[in-house]
Amino acid sequence: MAKVTYEKEITALLVIDPYNDFISEGGKLWDRLKGVAEANNCVPHMLQVLNVARVAGLRVFYALHRQYRPGDYEAWKYIAPVQKAAWAHRTFEYGTWGGQIRAEFEPKPGEIVATEHWCSSGFANTDLDLQLKKHGIHKLIVIGLIAHTCVEATVRFAAELGYDVTMVKDATADYSDEEMHAALDVNIPNYASAIVTTKEVVDSISSL
Amino acid sequence: MAKVTYEKEITALLVIDPYNDFISEGGKLWDRLKGVAEANNCVPHMLQVLNVARVAGLRVFYALHRQYRPGDYEAWKYIAPVQKAAWAHRTFEYGTWGGQIRAEFEPKPGEIVATEHWCSSGFANTDLDLQLKKHGIHKLIVIGLIAHTCVEATVRFAAELGYDVTMVKDATADYSDEEMHAALDVNIPNYASAIVTTKEVVDSISSL
Amino acid sequence: MAKVTYEKEITALLVIDPYNDFISEGGKLWDRLKGVAEANNCVPHMLQVLNVARVAGLRVFYALHRQYRPGDYEAWKYIAPVQKAAWAHRTFEYGTWGGQIRAEFEPKPGEIVATEHWCSSGFANTDLDLQLKKHGIHKLIVIGLIAHTCVEATVRFAAELGYDVTMVKDATADYSDEEMHAALDVNIPNYASAIVTTKEVVDSISSL
Amino acid sequence: MAKVTYEKEITALLVIDPYNDFISEGGKLWDRLKGVAEANNCVPHMLQVLNVARVAGLRVFYALHRQYRPGDYEAWKYIAPVQKAAWAHRTFEYGTWGGQIRAEFEPKPGEIVATEHWCSSGFANTDLDLQLKKHGIHKLIVIGLIAHTCVEATVRFAAELGYDVTMVKDATADYSDEEMHAALDVNIPNYASAIVTTKEVVDSISSL
Repeated sequence: MAKVTYEKEITALLVIDPYNDFISEGGKLWDRLKGVAEANNCVPHMLQVLNVARVAGLRVFYALHRQYRPGDYEAWKYIAPVQKAAWAHRTFEYGTWGGQIRAEFEPKPGEIVATEHWCSSGFANTDLDLQLKKHGIHKLIVIGLIAHTCVEATVRFAAELGYDVTMVKDATADYSDEEMHAALDVNIPNYASAIVTTKEVVDSISSL
Repeated sequence: MAKVTYEKEITALLVIDPYNDFISEGGKLWDRLKGVAEANNCVPHMLQVLNVARVAGLRVFYALHRQYRPGDYEAWKYIAPVQKAAWAHRTFEYGTWGGQIRAEFEPKPGEIVATEHWCSSGFANTDLDLQLKKHGIHKLIVIGLIAHTCVEATVRFAAELGYDVTMVKDATADYSDEEMHAALDVNIPNYASAIVTTKEVVDSISSL
Repeated sequence: MAKVTYEKEITALLVIDPYNDFISEGGKLWDRLKGVAEANNCVPHMLQVLNVARVAGLRVFYALHRQYRPGDYEAWKYIAPVQKAAWAHRTFEYGTWGGQIRAEFEPKPGEIVATEHWCSSGFANTDLDLQLKKHGIHKLIVIGLIAHTCVEATVRFAAELGYDVTMVKDATADYSDEEMHAALDVNIPNYASAIVTTKEVVDSISSL
Repeated sequence: MAKVTYEKEITALLVIDPYNDFISEGGKLWDRLKGVAEANNCVPHMLQVLNVARVAGLRVFYALHRQYRPGDYEAWKYIAPVQKAAWAHRTFEYGTWGGQIRAEFEPKPGEIVATEHWCSSGFANTDLDLQLKKHGIHKLIVIGLIAHTCVEATVRFAAELGYDVTMVKDATADYSDEEMHAALDVNIPNYASAIVTTKEVVDSISSL
């Protein structure tokens, strides 16, 4: 793959759902993600990309799923299966460790945490698009969880809304290789202009 | 699967991209879709669902991709791969047969044609959400093309925006079984509350 | 004015920015609003409408402005005058009394608080539209502050997005009669299908 | 007023509804607009701004109201007063002279015509936001009709969505001085970072 280049002023890192429930030992979904995540070194890769982005001065944004709170969904007349599951498992429960961002990924001052999303896309019903525009961002480097739901949804919405997307394929994970494949090989190639490894993107960012 | 039921006042049929280029002999993409489309009787199934919806008095909406016009994309600074492909092939070219709706699917008076979409989702940058609200619609029955791009994107956006979705799995098609599988078995089950056959949905609609 | 009627299932009360900074003695903007607010009994009227809506079982939604937090706006490249003012005055500051909802207007369980808005419209960059759809709402009765900014903006967006709006003209206030006039007499009549008094809307709701 | 400066790459001219029905002798609404429009030289000013923008190489965008077509609005359950009026008068009727752009304002190749809007905001339910992002635009210079409805709505939405706005106050018009005042003096100053005369903006653009 040809080297991907970025202009610092218009490029941001977007970190999706780095919650303990997803990526920390003891998290509600870690056991289901662990196989794929450990095989591709997902968490160390995410950290590597985050750290190099910070050093290079790229703006960092966080897209975070709704932390479950009592009452959520109860009066909804229409509810998608992915939301029913979040409700049943109280995933990312507000006020619990599982609903907190894994410590190493804690946002630093000046990093932007978008309002929480209710389904999968970090853009839907949130201020992410606004915040990106307010900071002059047009290109997104995407890392995080999980590949075929929140990550793919956010990449799709980013493209639909006019952003250029780079997907870091070994800084994400999923419940199975089949779901990783559906996201990374079948669908995201239609919407992300580049799909790269952590090593490739770290090289690109380091040279900024 | 349990029988799916609908309330006529709040349910609509959504037909996605029934262009000649996709589903008619001689269309630019028909040769690539034909294998899957003929195996599951996609086009006759789409027609069956459309006809029964009309008889039952369900409101019908169309989500249509941008018909290629000269100048499109040329000055865009950021362009997704799926848009580059549409540009290269001049898919659904305005003023050509391929960019017309296949004759049997021609909208009738009172049916709503949403403004064209530029990427894959029938909702992004269009008036589809507005038109659905203006008609009081909350539930969508989805048919059309192609499964892992426009159909999946539209289903995902529908769920993100608050709609209840039924996907008719043999009234869609794709370039390969692998892409059908990614859309119908891996991703859409997270966003559509029901995935049914033409026979099942026709039974449900007929009983309205 | 002819009696306005509502269907309970699809109608909600929308309360805009009932913050102490706006409507409580000692709030940062109360002195500027007080003249108009006391002349039309704004706060007692707001309470009257809220209480009758609760008794009638109408769903209640809150649209709340961003509570100022340190760091807000600092890195924005583009910032509207109304946002510059909010920044300068730290209006609705997070963690302060002024940034809290006035006690009598505190949301009750089952009432929906939309995510905060950054400018004036309760819909822009928030989950308000989603929450309304999830509860099947198509008609909004609007009360709150302040008439020519957040209220007018929210009414305009509601109409643009497909909602039917009733504006309660003596359950809002502004800095001056001129601004009230611009909002209530010049602009909102284009977007709200009814502009009523508290007495009128209370009668309508009571008969549900 | 201090001189306003623009960076060519991120600034666009946005022309709102330059239809014959609004600004040409014989147009359905010209008689109602004429008094204000002739007093401030609205049409010559609009042309002056458009021409200098073209010479300077600023990208030009058009936000156009829905051209009335038979069937429009008929099945809508909810309809705003401004839409009822458009329906009653068949304003900008498709296929008629009144629904055409006044000749001198005809878009040139490379200029972007957003999809039509159904209410007042050029952004709501259209591809205007997408097109602006695809061209890298963050700043808008706004001219067109009419001040307190489509122009104010579009300026408000632009600010809500993150754009920087300059309003050209003598390149717009309205039915009355009161409505001009509500838009230009009361409301738009909260959302546009600059409100300038044609002379001022022409000077700024000329120096690019």
